[in-house]
Amino acid sequence: MQQDKLLAIQDSVNRQLSQKITQFSNEQIPVLALTDALHYASAQGGKRLRPALCLTMGEALKLDHHALLDCASAIEFIHAYSLVHDDLPAMDNDTLRRGKPTCHVQFGEATAILAGDALQGLALQTLVESTHLDANQKILACQLLLDAAGPRGMIAGQMLDMLGEKTTLTLDQLTQLHQLKTGALITVSLLLGALTSVYFDQIKPTLTSLGNHIGLAFQIHDDILDIEVSTEQRGKTQGRDCELGKSTYPSLLGLKESKVMRDYHIAQAQADLKQLVSHPATTGDLDFLAEIIRFIGERQH
Amino acid sequence: MQQDKLLAIQDSVNRQLSQKITQFSNEQIPVLALTDALHYASAQGGKRLRPALCLTMGEALKLDHHALLDCASAIEFIHAYSLVHDDLPAMDNDTLRRGKPTCHVQFGEATAILAGDALQGLALQTLVESTHLDANQKILACQLLLDAAGPRGMIAGQMLDMLGEKTTLTLDQLTQLHQLKTGALITVSLLLGALTSVYFDQIKPTLTSLGNHIGLAFQIHDDILDIEVSTEQRGKTQGRDCELGKSTYPSLLGLKESKVMRDYHIAQAQADLKQLVSHPATTGDLDFLAEIIRFIGERQH
Repeated sequence: MQQDKLLAIQDSVNRQLSQKITQFSNEQIPVLALTDALHYASAQGGKRLRPALCLTMGEALKLDHHALLDCASAIEFIHAYSLVHDDLPAMDNDTLRRGKPTCHVQFGEATAILAGDALQGLALQTLVESTHLDANQKILACQLLLDAAGPRGMIAGQMLDMLGEKTTLTLDQLTQLHQLKTGALITVSLLLGALTSVYFDQIKPTLTSLGNHIGLAFQIHDDILDIEVSTEQRGKTQGRDCELGKSTYPSLLGLKESKVMRDYHIAQAQADLKQLVSHPATTGDLDFLAEIIRFIGERQH
Repeated sequence: MQQDKLLAIQDSVNRQLSQKITQFSNEQIPVLALTDALHYASAQGGKRLRPALCLTMGEALKLDHHALLDCASAIEFIHAYSLVHDDLPAMDNDTLRRGKPTCHVQFGEATAILAGDALQGLALQTLVESTHLDANQKILACQLLLDAAGPRGMIAGQMLDMLGEKTTLTLDQLTQLHQLKTGALITVSLLLGALTSVYFDQIKPTLTSLGNHIGLAFQIHDDILDIEVSTEQRGKTQGRDCELGKSTYPSLLGLKESKVMRDYHIAQAQADLKQLVSHPATTGDLDFLAEIIRFIGERQH
């Protein structure tokens, strides 16, 4: 993994998120606790997997970096809002995220609810106020992102996740849950990375398949880490899924079989990537995306 | 008040909200508790003041009804989401809304958090997926709505509202709070009602002033109702502001002076309306908007 390249992405995304929070907040009426919570919950830490997918995909297509950065930031704002609300006491009731107290532990529950609400709005503002996307691109980006994040995507997944607590899901149900909860936003990261390409419609099916495999590999590995890696190493509470009585890949398949399935999805993702490499749209290289996909099954946090 | 006209507006808005919830929900994976909560929290009951302002304004300008209905529905989805989250235990902890149990009482806190999140997204989807607005109109509508609802508008107001609990605000602080918390969304209802007019930029300042006065009159009257009208009559908990230790117009000015101030803002709103009546953009009539403004100071719920 080219750590310097990932660090550069993380750095530029963090700066962009901070800048957008400032841009869309009220300078005349600074509500400091809210602004602090927005920065805390979005512009600090995090792997930035989704922005990295978006930026790397777009770079392989040689698309405008500033437009990509706006799309990547919008996606990360949605991801950040979902984490803040997901960690709330009424949801997963988690106290640790990225090695720090969760937003509601740090700022109180009411501020965390409002910060999550604000982050969802900031995602859309980043798109509609972008100076690097034209009107039709803005609308398409909003349509794709809202669909992925809403009750046809992520929110449906969150709902299934909660309903699944204390009951044993089938493997199909678990897969569907994660395709919605995690996969939809990962897929849309790739789609928004290719949005301004003239080949967008042509490569969309491959990107969707790629996103789906990356999402599942990511989630299965996450379930494995939840068992294998300590709270200290990982910066989030070990064994939380088990405590909450959630079905996971290891709980349904066992650890060994889960790793086989994770590796299957990584291999499928690499196959999709090969298709993209040979497509005329790809005038840059996809080496870093290939590295990210490998990294998904190797990361320890 | 032409009750039949208001009822017709309420009816068409309710149908539109229901239709949008169905359109943007997942038919293949029905998450029934979520869909039920979305209908419950948005498509039933409510005065529909904001949609009425939007539709009435647009009708006076003889604009396309379907485009107006999409804008009005988007605004009402934002309003509904804010109510669901505002009622949560960590926020105002209210148990009664529109004469029914609040969303989290009915469906549980986690579902209410997700339903609020989904409603915010549905608002934007209603705009960007509209078949009655062109690309530039969609973007302008999103920009105005997000700005009004976000950390430069409603969310800043909610934050100030929470921070103001248990402390006595000055009259200026209270006014600012309500301009953000209530006024911003009421103003944007008028703006979105005029959005597709060629005169939009010309009449925007008057609409902004009108929205501001309507918002303050509405809020002051709300504070008065909180004291004067019983829980049964009103369908929401009497004396809740006082219980929460919130500053209100009556707590700062007394009841009598609050009524004077409410009537002042209603008179100012009527003056703004007069200006609009004489503007060449207004080819329809503004009689119903005048009635709505009068009704704001007379309603008992």
